[in-house]
Amino acid sequence: MTARYILHEYAQSGNCYKIRLTAALLGVPIERREYDILKGETRTPEFLAEVNANGRIPVLQAGDRFLPESNAACFYLADGSPLIPADRFDRADMLRWMFWEQYNHEPNVATLRFWLAFVGEANLSDLQRAQLPGKKAAGDAALKLMDDHLAVRPYFVGSSVTLADVALYAYTHVAEEGGGFDLGDHPNVQAWLARVEATPGYSSILA
Amino acid sequence: MTARYILHEYAQSGNCYKIRLTAALLGVPIERREYDILKGETRTPEFLAEVNANGRIPVLQAGDRFLPESNAACFYLADGSPLIPADRFDRADMLRWMFWEQYNHEPNVATLRFWLAFVGEANLSDLQRAQLPGKKAAGDAALKLMDDHLAVRPYFVGSSVTLADVALYAYTHVAEEGGGFDLGDHPNVQAWLARVEATPGYSSILA
Repeated sequence: MTARYILHEYAQSGNCYKIRLTAALLGVPIERREYDILKGETRTPEFLAEVNANGRIPVLQAGDRFLPESNAACFYLADGSPLIPADRFDRADMLRWMFWEQYNHEPNVATLRFWLAFVGEANLSDLQRAQLPGKKAAGDAALKLMDDHLAVRPYFVGSSVTLADVALYAYTHVAEEGGGFDLGDHPNVQAWLARVEATPGYSSILA
Repeated sequence: MTARYILHEYAQSGNCYKIRLTAALLGVPIERREYDILKGETRTPEFLAEVNANGRIPVLQAGDRFLPESNAACFYLADGSPLIPADRFDRADMLRWMFWEQYNHEPNVATLRFWLAFVGEANLSDLQRAQLPGKKAAGDAALKLMDDHLAVRPYFVGSSVTLADVALYAYTHVAEEGGGFDLGDHPNVQAWLARVEATPGYSSILA
């Protein structure tokens, strides 16, 4: 069967994995096209003109339309499914965690992983190196806020997995790959990671 | 009539204004509570315990529930209204621009305004000062991407105002207050600002 969707991606990016995980949980097939972001393959004139003028992956292609921004692509795939709460406040609260992920979590936890595990510390600019302590502290604060929230709840919103969990799972479960984060400091986060991984349809970032 | 909603805010913040503008376009009354972020009023133990553990405004209070993250609060207020497209792809595309706003626009255009017009350049840390050129370049790129997108469209998504326009209007229309941005370089953005301002119910950031 031909996939209705094409994911333009860099497979090890958590932002790209979010979309694959959403599709896996929904049982929706997705065709994948890989770009090497370390070689600038998303900044070519063709990519900027045809896929995303912002020069970034992931982009979800549905027919001849292109949807950048990982969390928007997850919302598109999951619209109308139980991954998005039916209750109006809960639906907005799910988006609250997804916006928080992109503003407070990803620029710290994901950026340190990318800089230290993919680019390499020796290849960082002076300005990037100067930002390491601040991003470590902000990443630790983000993980602590998650841990506190999960102390009395099984999932970020309501009583089952939503896109808030998918969005936050993506970079949290690989946080220890770079930046010195220690998930052992956050036992509620660890228990939540295991709950997400036990969800029917779950698929790993390596799949 | 008593407002159903309380907005915990710092009035000059574009993120807070977004929520007021959404409410104004919908004709929904909102009660306002002001916090001086320059004096740390959103980092007090009471604020962290009762309003937002993340120590930030805006937070929209609906009854006894609290909703941080500006774009999530706008979505909550506008859910079911014409400010959110009924078409599934367009709805996700609106969110795409809202996530892009928080990731590529706000950390550059809004942060430079805050640092230079509110904190003051003399009060910046060395690390903040070192980030000024990069944020100026990224902010210019964000405004150019908007200008290119608007060259052939009246609004960001579809043929009428959506939350994508509200979210992007908030900091774009005050971009010249700090950071050296020149909206004269972006005529399509200027024409779009005027269209937003002509929308029935529009309310200014000073209101």
